[in-house]
Amino acid sequence: MKTRAAVATGPGKPLEIMEVNLEGPRAGEVLVEIKATGLCHTDEFTRSGDDPEGLFPAILGHEGAGVVVEVGEGVTSLEVGDHVIPLYTAECRECEYCLNPKTNLCQKVRATQGKGVMPDGTSRFSLPDGTMIHHYMGCSTFANHTVLPEISLAKVRKDAPFDKICYIGCGVTTGVGAVINTAKVEPGSNCVVFGLGGIGLNVIQGLRMVGADMIVGVDLNNDKKAFAEQFGMTHFVNPSEVDGDLVAHLVELTGGGADYSFECIGNVNVMRQALECAHKGWGESIIIGVAGAGQEISTRPFQLVTGRSWRGSAFGGARGRTDVPKIVDWYMQGKIDIDPMITHKLSLDEINKGFELMHEGKSIRAVVEF
Amino acid sequence: MKTRAAVATGPGKPLEIMEVNLEGPRAGEVLVEIKATGLCHTDEFTRSGDDPEGLFPAILGHEGAGVVVEVGEGVTSLEVGDHVIPLYTAECRECEYCLNPKTNLCQKVRATQGKGVMPDGTSRFSLPDGTMIHHYMGCSTFANHTVLPEISLAKVRKDAPFDKICYIGCGVTTGVGAVINTAKVEPGSNCVVFGLGGIGLNVIQGLRMVGADMIVGVDLNNDKKAFAEQFGMTHFVNPSEVDGDLVAHLVELTGGGADYSFECIGNVNVMRQALECAHKGWGESIIIGVAGAGQEISTRPFQLVTGRSWRGSAFGGARGRTDVPKIVDWYMQGKIDIDPMITHKLSLDEINKGFELMHEGKSIRAVVEF
Ligand SMILES: [Zn+2]
Ligand SMILES: [Zn+2]
Ligand SMILES: [Zn+2]
Ligand SMILES: [Zn+2]
Repeated sequence: MKTRAAVATGPGKPLEIMEVNLEGPRAGEVLVEIKATGLCHTDEFTRSGDDPEGLFPAILGHEGAGVVVEVGEGVTSLEVGDHVIPLYTAECRECEYCLNPKTNLCQKVRATQGKGVMPDGTSRFSLPDGTMIHHYMGCSTFANHTVLPEISLAKVRKDAPFDKICYIGCGVTTGVGAVINTAKVEPGSNCVVFGLGGIGLNVIQGLRMVGADMIVGVDLNNDKKAFAEQFGMTHFVNPSEVDGDLVAHLVELTGGGADYSFECIGNVNVMRQALECAHKGWGESIIIGVAGAGQEISTRPFQLVTGRSWRGSAFGGARGRTDVPKIVDWYMQGKIDIDPMITHKLSLDEINKGFELMHEGKSIRAVVEF
Repeated sequence: MKTRAAVATGPGKPLEIMEVNLEGPRAGEVLVEIKATGLCHTDEFTRSGDDPEGLFPAILGHEGAGVVVEVGEGVTSLEVGDHVIPLYTAECRECEYCLNPKTNLCQKVRATQGKGVMPDGTSRFSLPDGTMIHHYMGCSTFANHTVLPEISLAKVRKDAPFDKICYIGCGVTTGVGAVINTAKVEPGSNCVVFGLGGIGLNVIQGLRMVGADMIVGVDLNNDKKAFAEQFGMTHFVNPSEVDGDLVAHLVELTGGGADYSFECIGNVNVMRQALECAHKGWGESIIIGVAGAGQEISTRPFQLVTGRSWRGSAFGGARGRTDVPKIVDWYMQGKIDIDPMITHKLSLDEINKGFELMHEGKSIRAVVEF
């Protein structure tokens, strides 16, 4: 079949909107009509050419929502008409990782996904001239139709709006999940969140949902204060306005240190501050932000020996097929907000404008509707 | 009263055996006759002058066992004749730390202990000329009699031999406790232990006790292999004999990485290796060794984001009054070994010989018996 897509033709180039060829689903695969997709920093990281593992041409996008159009041979968990959210972290429920309750990093399709192909080693997408187009993060949601492995799709309720729940495919789950699945924050905890972008806001609303007491947001931009307060932030700290040491200030503000701290920026110096503002004896610091290639974190081991722990979270520690439908429920029940975070709606033809908005810091989330 | 003690008169000087003055216990304090004490690297760290926080004159020693001789006003949990192990990490059972199940770092007497005095700010020890002698780590077990806070004494069974269980006051608990309390290692785990000194051996026997499958010991000295095997080590790796990268070798050997790794040396480069040989998705690395002042650990944050966690352990995460008596029971029941680790017995007059043996690498533990 043919479908319209935004194609990343080479590093640093604007996406090109065109009609591409799409083969139908093979065994274990599913054809999905994408109804809406968010634009995430990770897409831009690859589009810009900064991603050393970026492959071109490719159809980017990994934060979508849509409807099942056709299922391949042997697909049993989904049927035509089901509403789904694509998962860049699959959940096969049978690999060593899926069977270990401590991790969500299913390895079943990881290797081929990293190579931009389907599990059988081939791509379903091609340019009009027949040139193969790479899949991206196993999703490729910047296309009106896409093909995914069955294990990379979360089935969700049909009354949830696509233009909102697409954000659960990455940002919402990454933030809320880090609180719930990775840190397992207890009610009454004092927490510090570094960076009030999309991830930070979702960490904040995750903390509100689980009943944290003090939710301190740290950001250099005072304009973010009011918006973050809408999601549950109780205290705001601008590091540039703190006299003296930021870590000491945060330790004092939280009455001895954070029970949990979250780094949502990707800055290795901030990661250190996040660890060191954690409470002696039991504070845990969770790295969510993605640092630049080759960058390293450091601290004195004394920080760990005196009871702090340093951890990381990917896709919010969520097992997508199991946990994403629950987060959709929480949204529909009003336990978490998404609507105010979707700051811009675009058509596929306007997708490059979405990246401009991202660079200008004007959007929390721009969503393309098909 | 007078008692015989080994006094550290100044940095780098041999200990001086002499009769010192000892005041009786004040309110909440207990006078203990020390029957045996181990010599630990931490004592030597302070004696040598390397410890920037070292105070002199002082009576060192923090790994003892003895008998209660007199109790001060208000002491209710101990009586004359009780057998006890001094605790350099107290357990008051009422401070913010004791009431938080995630930590063992009771803060009740921390500040005064660090200043070498009792909780009321004064010392019970003095030189014959009346000069105050500092307490050390709240214990000062290099004296035939010493005074401690009630909350710094674990009451243990009376049939356990002092010259063995004194080692539970530091080394045994630090190693076994890191496995049980800090890492909470599950049966069937694959584990890597860096450094086969006293701490490493106790980590190994802790792993054996909880039913770990693979217990890999890593040490540059092949002579340590046979001894470590006695305590449960199943595989030995000498980094100098590995072709290529040690981390890659350990990941392969353990079938994907260690479920738990333990750094028992105090080398920041080894701490990094210990983290990076942990299993993607769920591996935890525990720092036990004490690094030199100012040294830092580093890694790429990717190591944490892909599911490894970096933690530390002090006094094996043990709450002394609660956990130390249990470890004494385990020794008496044969669940853990101590006897072969006590490689040398000395009199108080020979105590400086014990530090020589330590430097020559000839002892696992030298114990002074009174
Ligand atoms: Zn994303
Ligand atoms: Zn799996
Ligand atoms: Zn010690
Ligand atoms: Zn306490």
